[in-house]
Amino acid sequence: MYDKVIEGVLNKDRRMVARAISLIENNDNGRTKILSEIYPHTGNAYVIGITGAPGAGKSSLVDCLLSTLRQQGLSVGVIAVDPTSPFTGGAILGDRIRMQEHALDKEVFIRSMGTRGSLGGLSRATKEAVQVLDAAGKDVIIIETVGVGQSEVDIIKYADTTIVVLTPAGGDSVQTIKAGIMEIADIFIVNKSDLPGADRTASEISMMLDLGGSLREWRPSIVRTITLDGSGITDMHKAIFEHRDFLENSGHLQKVRKERIRRDIIDLIEYRIKSTVWEQISGSEEFDLLTNQIMSRETDPYTAAAQILTGINLDKCKV
Amino acid sequence: MYDKVIEGVLNKDRRMVARAISLIENNDNGRTKILSEIYPHTGNAYVIGITGAPGAGKSSLVDCLLSTLRQQGLSVGVIAVDPTSPFTGGAILGDRIRMQEHALDKEVFIRSMGTRGSLGGLSRATKEAVQVLDAAGKDVIIIETVGVGQSEVDIIKYADTTIVVLTPAGGDSVQTIKAGIMEIADIFIVNKSDLPGADRTASEISMMLDLGGSLREWRPSIVRTITLDGSGITDMHKAIFEHRDFLENSGHLQKVRKERIRRDIIDLIEYRIKSTVWEQISGSEEFDLLTNQIMSRETDPYTAAAQILTGINLDKCKV
Repeated sequence: MYDKVIEGVLNKDRRMVARAISLIENNDNGRTKILSEIYPHTGNAYVIGITGAPGAGKSSLVDCLLSTLRQQGLSVGVIAVDPTSPFTGGAILGDRIRMQEHALDKEVFIRSMGTRGSLGGLSRATKEAVQVLDAAGKDVIIIETVGVGQSEVDIIKYADTTIVVLTPAGGDSVQTIKAGIMEIADIFIVNKSDLPGADRTASEISMMLDLGGSLREWRPSIVRTITLDGSGITDMHKAIFEHRDFLENSGHLQKVRKERIRRDIIDLIEYRIKSTVWEQISGSEEFDLLTNQIMSRETDPYTAAAQILTGINLDKCKV
Repeated sequence: MYDKVIEGVLNKDRRMVARAISLIENNDNGRTKILSEIYPHTGNAYVIGITGAPGAGKSSLVDCLLSTLRQQGLSVGVIAVDPTSPFTGGAILGDRIRMQEHALDKEVFIRSMGTRGSLGGLSRATKEAVQVLDAAGKDVIIIETVGVGQSEVDIIKYADTTIVVLTPAGGDSVQTIKAGIMEIADIFIVNKSDLPGADRTASEISMMLDLGGSLREWRPSIVRTITLDGSGITDMHKAIFEHRDFLENSGHLQKVRKERIRRDIIDLIEYRIKSTVWEQISGSEEFDLLTNQIMSRETDPYTAAAQILTGINLDKCKV
């Protein structure tokens, strides 16, 4: 069965792509087999991340971007991640409906993902869905994620080019876009630029970049857009490809992707060890006993952790 | 030196409390010693978490709550966490200045914490700062955190009572407060209730609770406040103590605290193992070699992780 799914992914069979992502998301037994066998066929897609506060207009921007990329003849995968939503697996989000015009386009694959359990899991599932789409030959993969917190930073870090979307009005003023986000943005979009305050928002971003970004080799572009009439979409598209050229010519792309692989290996090792620890701890009498002793302050978690560690057979994770 | 700090904390010496938190936050060598030795003196404080979007008025609410708790004769610790800020260690946030009136009150201890590195680190540092304040005899500890994303959920989970602050206007409408937040809230505050839409916000929350919360034993209270004139502050105070009574009488408090200890033990074990793995991997030639082989698609991260695991001496974490 897994062989059929893998073959389907490599043959760009949309149903099998969807199937593979579902299997991975559900942590199916075949997950590692699928991922390791498609791996040799990955590394060709360019990954774009789009993040910003709810209501900033990310979905509309993705919609516009999709159209321009398709006009270029590129095949595109979109992964819409909502870390605050428990819904997942192809669930059609409200504003996803606008993307319907692309739904019949065979060169476009759109997928929504929600938390379903832990956030670490979502970040991992997103990364792995990118790999599936990459192996299925998508030229460009767009990760769209709601919000601008740490969880979104974790998700977006698999993107080669990261776009942060702001709007002139509202609570997502530049002031609230703190350090973490300023650091990950390669391109700032001031969307809804027809609203009052667009100039100020753009110049505030520019000022923040002047203050903090002098050591960076890439100065993030600032692009104004109005999705309603398509203003600035060409500029956004251009900014993305300029950034890609920069990454490729400067050797940064190689460097970043290498660092990502190192992180992947470590994550996999840690995940394996954690599972082993959990298998041996959960339901163990010693664990329960120590928990009670900590409750009554007879011992403390630090001493208990050391004691439990002594008893765990860690070699079990080496199978 | 650490003995002096520990003694100081237990003697409620404010300077030593600040010192202990800094040492822990900086992951000083004495961290585990301090935490395990103060541990027997913890478990007495009641922990309140306050979260909500930027600009919702959390700091003003904390300010008001501080005053009412002090009038009750309770000593209070406040930990203001900003996951998006790199600043930390007593850095005075802008709106922290309003708390100055409490700064001279010896029974009040206020501390700001920012990311300084990883978010996992912040969540851990917050928990441990709570332990220090608990050991230093604070009756109530308030954790205030910006935003309503997953990172805040992780931080706020050390609270016994969690308050989610909303406002009638703006982008933080009930609709954007998704599942994750609805689940952690024990009390909803509709702040700035003098603004238009307060009724609607309150009834929207109520509707969401009707939809999803029927299985919960505690139905979250909804309290309207106006911090400018102090309206609703008494109700908020009352709601907190009602929730505490519920937790104590129903046995939930014991259950939740026990679950938290179990999580603590596991976190400590995992942290220890991760450090051991990292020590042996970083700088290892095999790791570099495998990374390059993955880059050229000669192998994949899954095979590489298994291979590296075989070579790691995991018993080193059992010291």
